[in-house]
Amino acid sequence: MKTLLLIGMGSGDPQQITVQAIQALNRTSVFFVLDKGKTTDDLVRLRLEICERYIREPGYRVVQVRDPKRDSTTLSYTQGVEDWHEQRAELFARLIEDELGEGECGAFLLWGEPALYDSTLRILDRVRANGCTAFDYEVIPGISSVQALVARHRVALNDIGQPIRITTGRRLVAEDLDNVVVMLDAHCAFQAFVHEDLDIYWGAYIGTADEILIAGKLADVCEQIRQTREQARLRKGWIMDTYLLRRSAKPH
Amino acid sequence: MKTLLLIGMGSGDPQQITVQAIQALNRTSVFFVLDKGKTTDDLVRLRLEICERYIREPGYRVVQVRDPKRDSTTLSYTQGVEDWHEQRAELFARLIEDELGEGECGAFLLWGEPALYDSTLRILDRVRANGCTAFDYEVIPGISSVQALVARHRVALNDIGQPIRITTGRRLVAEDLDNVVVMLDAHCAFQAFVHEDLDIYWGAYIGTADEILIAGKLADVCEQIRQTREQARLRKGWIMDTYLLRRSAKPH
Repeated sequence: MKTLLLIGMGSGDPQQITVQAIQALNRTSVFFVLDKGKTTDDLVRLRLEICERYIREPGYRVVQVRDPKRDSTTLSYTQGVEDWHEQRAELFARLIEDELGEGECGAFLLWGEPALYDSTLRILDRVRANGCTAFDYEVIPGISSVQALVARHRVALNDIGQPIRITTGRRLVAEDLDNVVVMLDAHCAFQAFVHEDLDIYWGAYIGTADEILIAGKLADVCEQIRQTREQARLRKGWIMDTYLLRRSAKPH
Repeated sequence: MKTLLLIGMGSGDPQQITVQAIQALNRTSVFFVLDKGKTTDDLVRLRLEICERYIREPGYRVVQVRDPKRDSTTLSYTQGVEDWHEQRAELFARLIEDELGEGECGAFLLWGEPALYDSTLRILDRVRANGCTAFDYEVIPGISSVQALVARHRVALNDIGQPIRITTGRRLVAEDLDNVVVMLDAHCAFQAFVHEDLDIYWGAYIGTADEILIAGKLADVCEQIRQTREQARLRKGWIMDTYLLRRSAKPH
Protein backbone atom coordinates (compact mmCIF):
# COMPACT_ATOMS: atom_id res chain seq x y z
CA MET A 1 0.00 0.00 0.00
CA LYS A 2 1.11 3.56 -0.75
CA THR A 3 0.13 6.49 1.47
CA LEU A 4 -0.56 10.09 0.53
CA LEU A 5 -0.54 12.82 3.14
CA LEU A 6 -2.34 16.12 2.59
CA ILE A 7 -0.42 18.34 4.98
CA GLY A 8 -1.80 21.72 6.05
CA MET A 9 1.20 23.97 6.59
CA GLY A 10 -0.48 27.07 7.95
CA SER A 11 -0.96 30.19 5.92
CA GLY A 12 2.52 31.68 5.76
CA ASP A 13 4.11 31.81 9.20
CA PRO A 14 6.34 28.70 9.38
CA GLN A 15 5.67 28.57 13.14
CA GLN A 16 1.98 28.08 12.52
CA ILE A 17 2.55 24.44 11.67
CA THR A 18 1.36 21.70 14.00
CA VAL A 19 3.40 18.97 15.65
CA GLN A 20 1.23 16.50 13.73
CA ALA A 21 2.20 18.14 10.44
CA ILE A 22 5.89 18.05 11.36
CA GLN A 23 5.60 14.34 12.09
CA ALA A 24 3.90 13.90 8.73
CA LEU A 25 6.77 15.75 7.00
CA ASN A 26 9.17 13.35 8.65
CA ARG A 27 7.25 10.29 7.43
CA THR A 28 7.35 11.50 3.82
CA SER A 29 9.65 10.07 1.13
CA VAL A 30 8.36 12.11 -1.80
CA PHE A 31 6.99 15.64 -1.82
CA PHE A 32 4.83 16.54 -4.78
CA VAL A 33 5.04 20.22 -5.63
CA LEU A 34 2.65 21.61 -8.19
CA ASP A 35 4.15 24.54 -9.95
CA LYS A 36 1.82 27.14 -11.41
CA GLY A 37 4.57 28.97 -13.27
CA LYS A 38 6.83 31.88 -12.53
CA THR A 39 4.62 34.14 -10.42
CA THR A 40 4.26 31.73 -7.53
CA ASP A 41 7.90 30.73 -7.21
CA ASP A 42 7.82 32.35 -3.75
CA LEU A 43 5.22 29.82 -2.67
CA VAL A 44 7.23 26.85 -3.90
CA ARG A 45 10.34 28.19 -2.17
CA LEU A 46 8.46 28.68 1.12
CA ARG A 47 7.28 25.07 0.98
CA LEU A 48 10.80 23.78 0.55
CA GLU A 49 12.01 26.02 3.39
CA ILE A 50 9.45 24.40 5.67
CA CYS A 51 10.79 20.96 4.72
CA GLU A 52 14.35 22.09 5.39
CA ARG A 53 13.43 23.60 8.72
CA TYR A 54 11.44 20.71 10.14
CA ILE A 55 12.73 17.50 8.60
CA ARG A 56 15.33 15.95 10.86
CA GLU A 57 16.84 13.35 8.51
CA PRO A 58 16.57 14.68 4.99
CA GLY A 59 16.33 11.73 2.63
CA TYR A 60 13.27 12.90 0.78
CA ARG A 61 12.78 13.57 -2.91
CA VAL A 62 10.92 16.54 -4.36
CA VAL A 63 8.91 15.91 -7.51
CA GLN A 64 7.96 19.21 -9.06
CA VAL A 65 5.37 19.10 -11.83
CA ARG A 66 3.58 21.72 -13.83
CA ASP A 67 -0.01 22.12 -12.66
CA PRO A 68 -2.53 21.75 -15.52
CA LYS A 69 -3.77 25.22 -16.47
CA ARG A 70 -7.43 25.88 -15.84
CA ASP A 71 -9.21 26.80 -19.04
CA SER A 72 -10.91 30.08 -18.22
CA THR A 73 -12.45 30.32 -21.70
CA THR A 74 -14.91 27.52 -20.93
CA LEU A 75 -18.39 28.97 -20.78
CA SER A 76 -19.40 27.48 -17.42
CA TYR A 77 -17.24 28.07 -14.35
CA THR A 78 -18.23 24.68 -12.93
CA GLN A 79 -17.41 22.87 -16.18
CA GLY A 80 -14.03 24.62 -16.31
CA VAL A 81 -13.26 23.45 -12.78
CA GLU A 82 -14.53 19.92 -13.59
CA ASP A 83 -12.20 19.63 -16.59
CA TRP A 84 -9.29 20.94 -14.60
CA HIS A 85 -9.94 18.50 -11.75
CA GLU A 86 -10.05 15.62 -14.23
CA GLN A 87 -6.69 16.67 -15.68
CA ARG A 88 -5.23 16.96 -12.21
CA ALA A 89 -6.66 13.54 -11.27
CA GLU A 90 -4.89 11.99 -14.28
CA LEU A 91 -1.65 13.72 -13.27
CA PHE A 92 -1.98 12.57 -9.63
CA ALA A 93 -2.71 8.96 -10.70
CA ARG A 94 0.46 9.03 -12.83
CA LEU A 95 2.52 10.47 -9.95
CA ILE A 96 1.26 7.80 -7.55
CA GLU A 97 1.98 5.08 -10.10
CA ASP A 98 5.40 6.29 -11.28
CA GLU A 99 6.95 8.19 -8.40
CA LEU A 100 5.82 6.37 -5.28
CA GLY A 101 7.22 2.96 -4.33
CA GLU A 102 5.24 0.26 -2.54
CA GLY A 103 4.96 1.17 1.17
CA GLU A 104 6.24 4.71 0.52
CA CYS A 105 4.66 7.87 1.76
CA GLY A 106 4.06 10.85 -0.54
CA ALA A 107 2.81 14.27 0.49
CA PHE A 108 1.24 17.42 -0.81
CA LEU A 109 2.14 20.52 1.19
CA LEU A 110 -0.94 22.71 1.23
CA TRP A 111 -1.28 26.32 2.30
CA GLY A 112 -3.68 26.92 5.13
CA GLU A 113 -6.32 24.30 5.79
CA PRO A 114 -6.56 21.34 3.35
CA ALA A 115 -10.37 21.21 3.70
CA LEU A 116 -10.95 24.87 2.89
CA TYR A 117 -11.01 25.97 -0.77
CA ASP A 118 -8.34 23.49 -1.76
CA SER A 119 -9.05 20.90 -4.41
CA THR A 120 -6.43 18.27 -3.55
CA LEU A 121 -8.74 16.18 -1.34
CA ARG A 122 -11.49 16.22 -3.94
CA ILE A 123 -9.04 15.28 -6.69
CA LEU A 124 -7.77 12.29 -4.69
CA ASP A 125 -11.39 11.12 -4.35
CA ARG A 126 -11.61 11.37 -8.12
CA VAL A 127 -8.36 9.43 -8.58
CA ARG A 128 -9.88 6.60 -6.55
CA ALA A 129 -13.21 6.85 -8.36
CA ASN A 130 -11.27 6.54 -11.62
CA GLY A 131 -9.97 3.17 -10.45
CA CYS A 132 -6.56 3.98 -8.99
CA THR A 133 -7.11 2.60 -5.49
CA ALA A 134 -3.68 1.29 -4.56
CA PHE A 135 -3.21 4.06 -2.01
CA ASP A 136 -4.58 5.32 1.27
CA TYR A 137 -4.53 8.95 2.34
CA GLU A 138 -4.67 11.12 5.46
CA VAL A 139 -5.55 14.76 5.99
CA ILE A 140 -3.55 16.83 8.47
CA PRO A 141 -5.33 20.08 9.35
CA GLY A 142 -3.49 23.40 9.18
CA ILE A 143 -4.08 26.93 10.42
CA SER A 144 -6.08 28.67 7.69
CA SER A 145 -5.55 32.24 6.56
CA VAL A 146 -8.96 32.97 8.12
CA GLN A 147 -7.61 32.06 11.55
CA ALA A 148 -4.30 33.85 11.01
CA LEU A 149 -6.23 36.96 9.90
CA VAL A 150 -8.47 37.25 12.93
CA ALA A 151 -5.64 36.37 15.32
CA ARG A 152 -3.57 39.26 13.96
CA HIS A 153 -6.54 41.63 14.17
CA ARG A 154 -7.52 40.18 17.56
CA VAL A 155 -11.19 39.87 16.68
CA ALA A 156 -13.56 36.95 17.13
CA LEU A 157 -14.90 35.23 14.02
CA ASN A 158 -18.45 35.20 15.33
CA ASP A 159 -20.72 37.57 17.14
CA ILE A 160 -22.06 36.08 20.40
CA GLY A 161 -23.84 32.84 19.49
CA GLN A 162 -24.25 34.04 15.89
CA PRO A 163 -23.42 32.16 12.68
CA ILE A 164 -20.45 32.79 10.40
CA ARG A 165 -20.31 32.64 6.64
CA ILE A 166 -17.13 31.87 4.72
CA THR A 167 -17.37 32.59 1.02
CA THR A 168 -15.49 33.63 -2.10
CA GLY A 169 -15.31 37.05 -3.75
CA ARG A 170 -17.53 35.92 -6.61
CA ARG A 171 -20.22 34.63 -4.23
CA LEU A 172 -20.33 37.58 -1.80
CA VAL A 173 -23.90 38.88 -1.54
CA ALA A 174 -25.69 41.47 0.59
CA GLU A 175 -27.36 38.75 2.72
CA ASP A 176 -23.91 37.74 4.01
CA LEU A 177 -22.93 41.11 5.40
CA ASP A 178 -23.88 40.55 9.03
CA ASN A 179 -20.69 38.55 9.41
CA VAL A 180 -18.70 37.10 6.52
CA VAL A 181 -15.17 36.01 5.76
CA VAL A 182 -14.16 36.37 2.12
CA MET A 183 -11.39 34.39 0.43
CA LEU A 184 -10.18 34.12 -3.16
CA ASP A 185 -11.33 37.61 -4.08
CA ALA A 186 -9.31 38.94 -7.00
CA HIS A 187 -11.69 41.83 -7.67
CA CYS A 188 -12.19 43.53 -4.28
CA ALA A 189 -15.84 42.49 -4.08
CA PHE A 190 -16.19 44.54 -0.87
CA GLN A 191 -16.25 47.72 -2.97
CA ALA A 192 -19.86 46.99 -3.93
CA PHE A 193 -20.89 47.47 -0.29
CA VAL A 194 -18.99 50.64 0.54
CA HIS A 195 -22.23 52.48 1.37
CA GLU A 196 -23.27 49.95 4.02
CA ASP A 197 -22.26 50.50 7.64
CA LEU A 198 -19.60 47.78 7.81
CA ASP A 199 -16.32 47.10 9.55
CA ILE A 200 -13.60 45.38 7.55
CA TYR A 201 -10.55 43.49 8.80
CA TRP A 202 -8.26 42.87 5.85
CA GLY A 203 -4.91 41.13 5.58
CA ALA A 204 -2.47 40.02 2.90
CA TYR A 205 0.57 37.70 3.08
CA ILE A 206 -0.44 37.10 6.68
CA GLY A 207 2.29 35.70 8.90
CA THR A 208 5.08 36.44 6.42
CA ALA A 209 7.59 39.29 6.35
CA ASP A 210 5.37 41.01 3.77
CA GLU A 211 2.25 40.97 5.96
CA ILE A 212 -0.12 43.91 5.50
CA LEU A 213 -3.08 44.51 7.83
CA ILE A 214 -5.77 47.16 7.44
CA ALA A 215 -8.92 47.52 9.55
CA GLY A 216 -11.61 50.15 9.92
CA LYS A 217 -14.98 51.30 8.70
CA LEU A 218 -15.30 50.01 5.16
CA ALA A 219 -16.21 53.47 3.87
CA ASP A 220 -13.00 54.89 5.35
CA VAL A 221 -10.52 52.22 4.25
CA CYS A 222 -12.08 50.77 1.09
CA GLU A 223 -9.93 52.76 -1.32
CA GLN A 224 -6.81 52.34 0.82
CA ILE A 225 -7.22 48.55 0.73
CA ARG A 226 -7.83 48.53 -3.01
CA GLN A 227 -4.72 50.59 -3.74
CA THR A 228 -2.51 48.78 -1.23
CA ARG A 229 -3.61 45.46 -2.65
CA GLU A 230 -2.93 46.48 -6.22
CA GLN A 231 0.52 47.90 -5.45
CA ALA A 232 1.51 44.81 -3.46
CA ARG A 233 0.29 42.48 -6.18
CA LEU A 234 2.30 44.36 -8.83
CA ARG A 235 5.38 44.48 -6.64
CA LYS A 236 5.43 40.77 -5.72
CA GLY A 237 3.68 39.34 -8.76
CA TRP A 238 1.06 37.55 -6.63
CA ILE A 239 -1.11 38.20 -3.62
CA MET A 240 -2.99 36.10 -1.08
CA ASP A 241 -5.47 38.10 0.96
CA THR A 242 -8.50 37.48 3.14
CA TYR A 243 -10.95 39.68 4.96
CA LEU A 244 -13.75 39.72 7.49
CA LEU A 245 -16.72 42.01 6.83
CA ARG A 246 -19.19 42.68 9.60
CA ARG A 247 -22.02 45.09 10.27
CA SER A 248 -20.76 47.74 12.65
CA ALA A 249 -21.93 47.19 16.21
CA LYS A 250 -24.73 49.48 17.27
CA PRO A 251 -23.72 51.77 20.11
CA HIS A 252 -25.15 50.51 23.43
CA MET B 1 3.42 45.98 30.86
CA LYS B 2 1.79 42.61 31.42
CA THR B 3 0.99 40.26 28.55
CA LEU B 4 -1.85 37.84 28.16
CA LEU B 5 -1.70 35.05 25.60
CA LEU B 6 -4.84 33.37 24.29
CA ILE B 7 -3.42 30.06 23.17
CA GLY B 8 -5.37 27.78 20.86
CA MET B 9 -4.43 24.23 21.78
CA GLY B 10 -6.25 22.28 19.13
CA SER B 11 -9.40 20.34 19.78
CA GLY B 12 -8.19 17.30 21.70
CA ASP B 13 -5.22 15.69 19.98
CA PRO B 14 -2.15 17.07 21.78
CA GLN B 15 -0.22 16.79 18.50
CA GLN B 16 -2.57 19.26 16.84
CA ILE B 17 -0.81 22.14 18.57
CA THR B 18 1.33 24.56 16.60
CA VAL B 19 4.99 25.43 17.07
CA GLN B 20 3.81 28.99 17.74
CA ALA B 21 1.55 27.77 20.56
CA ILE B 22 4.37 25.73 22.08
CA GLN B 23 6.58 28.81 22.06
CA ALA B 24 3.77 30.72 23.74
CA LEU B 25 3.48 28.02 26.44
CA ASN B 26 7.18 28.42 27.08
CA ARG B 27 6.88 32.20 27.48
CA THR B 28 4.15 31.87 30.08
CA SER B 29 4.67 32.37 33.82
CA VAL B 30 1.05 31.94 34.92
CA PHE B 31 -1.64 29.73 33.40
CA PHE B 32 -5.19 30.71 34.23
CA VAL B 33 -7.50 27.72 34.28
CA LEU B 34 -11.22 28.32 34.56
CA ASP B 35 -12.90 25.43 36.24
CA LYS B 36 -16.55 24.79 35.48
CA GLY B 37 -16.95 22.19 38.22
CA LYS B 38 -16.62 18.45 38.43
CA THR B 39 -17.92 17.33 35.03
CA THR B 40 -15.14 18.94 33.02
CA ASP B 41 -12.23 17.78 35.17
CA ASP B 42 -11.06 15.81 32.12
CA LEU B 43 -10.66 19.06 30.21
CA VAL B 44 -8.63 20.71 32.96
CA ARG B 45 -6.41 17.63 33.22
CA LEU B 46 -5.84 17.55 29.46
CA ARG B 47 -4.74 21.20 29.56
CA LEU B 48 -2.18 20.50 32.25
CA GLU B 49 -0.91 17.45 30.36
CA ILE B 50 -0.24 19.70 27.38
CA CYS B 51 1.79 22.04 29.60
CA GLU B 52 3.76 19.11 30.98
CA ARG B 53 4.42 17.68 27.56
CA TYR B 54 5.58 20.84 25.83
CA ILE B 55 7.12 23.13 28.44
CA ARG B 56 10.84 22.60 28.55
CA GLU B 57 11.72 24.41 31.80
CA PRO B 58 8.71 24.14 34.10
CA GLY B 59 8.70 27.17 36.35
CA TYR B 60 5.13 28.19 35.72
CA ARG B 61 2.27 28.62 38.15
CA VAL B 62 -1.28 27.42 37.56
CA VAL B 63 -4.05 29.61 38.91
CA GLN B 64 -7.29 27.69 38.90
CA VAL B 65 -10.47 29.67 39.52
CA ARG B 66 -14.12 28.81 39.46
CA ASP B 67 -15.77 30.17 36.32
CA PRO B 68 -18.83 32.34 37.07
CA LYS B 69 -21.95 30.31 36.38
CA ARG B 70 -24.13 31.55 33.56
CA ASP B 71 -27.63 32.35 34.79
CA SER B 72 -29.86 30.36 32.45
CA THR B 73 -33.01 31.66 34.19
CA THR B 74 -32.55 35.12 32.64
CA LEU B 75 -35.32 35.72 30.15
CA SER B 76 -33.13 36.86 27.27
CA TYR B 77 -30.28 34.63 26.07
CA THR B 78 -28.26 37.68 25.05
CA GLN B 79 -28.75 39.38 28.42
CA GLY B 80 -27.73 36.16 30.19
CA VAL B 81 -24.51 36.07 28.16
CA GLU B 82 -23.93 39.81 28.72
CA ASP B 83 -24.17 39.42 32.51
CA TRP B 84 -21.92 36.40 32.45
CA HIS B 85 -19.31 38.21 30.33
CA GLU B 86 -19.36 41.12 32.76
CA GLN B 87 -18.75 38.77 35.70
CA ARG B 88 -15.95 37.09 33.84
CA ALA B 89 -14.45 40.49 32.92
CA GLU B 90 -14.37 41.43 36.60
CA LEU B 91 -12.74 38.11 37.43
CA PHE B 92 -10.14 38.53 34.65
CA ALA B 93 -9.31 42.08 35.75
CA ARG B 94 -8.74 40.79 39.28
CA LEU B 95 -6.52 37.96 38.02
CA ILE B 96 -4.43 40.35 35.91
CA GLU B 97 -4.11 42.73 38.87
CA ASP B 98 -3.39 40.17 41.60
CA GLU B 99 -1.73 37.21 39.94
CA LEU B 100 0.44 38.70 37.22
CA GLY B 101 3.62 40.61 38.00
CA GLU B 102 4.94 43.52 35.94
CA GLY B 103 6.53 42.18 32.74
CA GLU B 104 5.06 38.73 33.30
CA CYS B 105 3.18 36.69 30.77
CA GLY B 106 -0.11 35.00 31.61
CA ALA B 107 -2.04 32.61 29.40
CA PHE B 108 -5.42 31.09 28.82
CA LEU B 109 -5.31 27.66 27.21
CA LEU B 110 -8.28 27.46 24.89
CA TRP B 111 -9.74 24.43 23.15
CA GLY B 112 -9.80 24.64 19.41
CA GLU B 113 -9.60 28.06 17.81
CA PRO B 114 -9.67 31.12 20.12
CA ALA B 115 -11.68 33.16 17.59
CA LEU B 116 -14.46 30.59 17.14
CA TYR B 117 -17.25 30.44 19.72
CA ASP B 118 -14.95 31.27 22.58
CA SER B 119 -15.61 34.31 24.72
CA THR B 120 -12.12 34.96 26.14
CA LEU B 121 -11.11 37.46 23.46
CA ARG B 122 -14.35 39.39 23.82
CA ILE B 123 -14.03 39.43 27.59
CA LEU B 124 -10.50 40.84 27.41
CA ASP B 125 -11.86 43.64 25.18
CA ARG B 126 -14.39 44.27 27.92
CA VAL B 127 -11.70 44.28 30.62
CA ARG B 128 -9.92 47.01 28.67
CA ALA B 129 -13.12 48.92 28.03
CA ASN B 130 -13.77 48.79 31.78
CA GLY B 131 -10.51 50.68 32.33
CA CYS B 132 -8.00 47.93 33.09
CA THR B 133 -5.50 48.67 30.33
CA ALA B 134 -2.19 47.75 31.95
CA PHE B 135 -1.82 44.72 29.70
CA ASP B 136 -1.34 43.74 26.10
CA TYR B 137 -2.57 40.50 24.57
CA GLU B 138 -1.91 38.18 21.67
CA VAL B 139 -4.01 35.52 20.00
CA ILE B 140 -2.41 32.25 18.88
CA PRO B 141 -4.66 30.33 16.47
CA GLY B 142 -5.39 26.66 17.06
CA ILE B 143 -6.85 23.80 15.05
CA SER B 144 -10.61 23.94 15.61
CA SER B 145 -12.85 20.93 16.10
CA VAL B 146 -14.34 21.81 12.70
CA GLN B 147 -10.98 21.16 11.05
CA ALA B 148 -10.26 18.06 13.11
CA LEU B 149 -13.72 16.72 12.19
CA VAL B 150 -13.38 17.06 8.43
CA ALA B 151 -9.78 15.83 8.47
CA ARG B 152 -10.87 12.62 10.20
CA HIS B 153 -13.78 12.18 7.78
CA ARG B 154 -11.55 13.22 4.84
CA VAL B 155 -14.14 15.57 3.38
CA ALA B 156 -13.77 19.15 2.18
CA LEU B 157 -15.54 21.89 4.11
CA ASN B 158 -16.88 23.51 0.97
CA ASP B 159 -18.39 22.36 -2.26
CA ILE B 160 -16.46 23.66 -5.31
CA GLY B 161 -16.39 27.45 -5.03
CA GLN B 162 -19.42 27.40 -2.71
CA PRO B 163 -19.86 29.16 0.63
CA ILE B 164 -19.79 27.53 4.05
CA ARG B 165 -21.90 28.33 7.07
CA ILE B 166 -20.73 27.68 10.62
CA THR B 167 -23.49 27.93 13.19
CA THR B 168 -24.78 26.69 16.54
CA GLY B 169 -27.46 24.10 17.27
CA ARG B 170 -29.91 26.76 18.36
CA ARG B 171 -29.44 28.76 15.15
CA LEU B 172 -29.57 25.91 12.63
CA VAL B 173 -32.26 26.65 10.02
CA ALA B 174 -33.41 25.02 6.78
CA GLU B 175 -31.71 27.74 4.68
CA ASP B 176 -28.32 26.50 5.94
CA LEU B 177 -28.66 22.92 4.78
CA ASP B 178 -26.75 23.17 1.51
CA ASN B 179 -23.55 23.07 3.53
CA VAL B 180 -23.34 23.81 7.24
CA VAL B 181 -21.09 23.01 10.19
CA VAL B 182 -22.88 22.90 13.54
CA MET B 183 -21.18 23.42 16.89
CA LEU B 184 -22.49 23.71 20.47
CA ASP B 185 -25.55 21.60 19.80
CA ALA B 186 -26.80 20.01 23.02
CA HIS B 187 -30.13 19.01 21.53
CA CYS B 188 -29.30 17.19 18.27
CA ALA B 189 -30.85 19.92 16.12
CA PHE B 190 -30.18 17.77 13.03
CA GLN B 191 -33.14 15.59 13.98
CA ALA B 192 -35.52 18.27 12.71
CA PHE B 193 -34.19 17.71 9.18
CA VAL B 194 -34.22 13.91 9.06
CA HIS B 195 -36.64 13.92 6.12
CA GLU B 196 -34.34 16.03 3.92
CA ASP B 197 -31.85 14.34 1.61
CA LEU B 198 -28.72 15.15 3.61
CA ASP B 199 -25.33 13.66 4.39
CA ILE B 200 -23.99 14.05 7.92
CA TYR B 201 -20.40 13.79 9.14
CA TRP B 202 -20.47 13.69 12.93
CA GLY B 203 -17.72 13.41 15.52
CA ALA B 204 -17.26 13.59 19.27
CA TYR B 205 -14.11 13.89 21.42
CA ILE B 206 -12.23 14.20 18.14
CA GLY B 207 -8.53 13.50 18.34
CA THR B 208 -8.74 11.91 21.80
CA ALA B 209 -8.76 8.24 22.79
CA ASP B 210 -12.55 8.49 23.13
CA GLU B 211 -13.09 9.72 19.56
CA ILE B 212 -16.35 8.62 17.91
CA LEU B 213 -17.03 9.21 14.20
CA ILE B 214 -20.28 8.49 12.36
CA ALA B 215 -21.10 9.44 8.77
CA GLY B 216 -23.87 8.60 6.33
CA LYS B 217 -27.24 9.65 5.02
CA LEU B 218 -28.90 11.59 7.82
CA ALA B 219 -32.03 9.46 7.58
CA ASP B 220 -29.94 6.31 8.09
CA VAL B 221 -27.71 7.44 10.98
CA CYS B 222 -29.79 10.08 12.76
CA GLU B 223 -31.00 7.78 15.53
CA GLN B 224 -27.61 6.08 15.82
CA ILE B 225 -25.93 9.44 16.40
CA ARG B 226 -28.54 10.52 18.94
CA GLN B 227 -28.18 7.32 20.97
CA THR B 228 -24.39 7.16 20.70
CA ARG B 229 -24.15 10.78 21.80
CA GLU B 230 -26.43 10.28 24.79
CA GLN B 231 -24.64 7.15 25.96
CA ALA B 232 -21.22 8.79 25.64
CA ARG B 233 -22.39 11.89 27.48
CA LEU B 234 -23.75 9.82 30.36
CA ARG B 235 -20.64 7.65 30.50
CA LYS B 236 -18.13 10.52 30.54
CA GLY B 237 -20.25 13.21 32.14
CA TRP B 238 -19.62 15.66 29.25
CA ILE B 239 -19.43 15.67 25.49
CA MET B 240 -17.93 17.89 22.80
CA ASP B 241 -19.24 17.11 19.35
CA THR B 242 -19.43 18.81 15.96
CA TYR B 243 -20.96 17.90 12.64
CA LEU B 244 -21.14 18.84 8.99
CA LEU B 245 -24.53 18.63 7.25
CA ARG B 246 -24.71 18.82 3.48
CA ARG B 247 -27.28 18.17 0.78
CA SER B 248 -26.47 14.84 -0.82
CA ALA B 249 -24.75 15.21 -4.17
CA LYS B 250 -27.01 14.56 -7.11
CA PRO B 251 -25.91 11.55 -9.17
CA HIS B 252 -24.12 12.67 -12.36
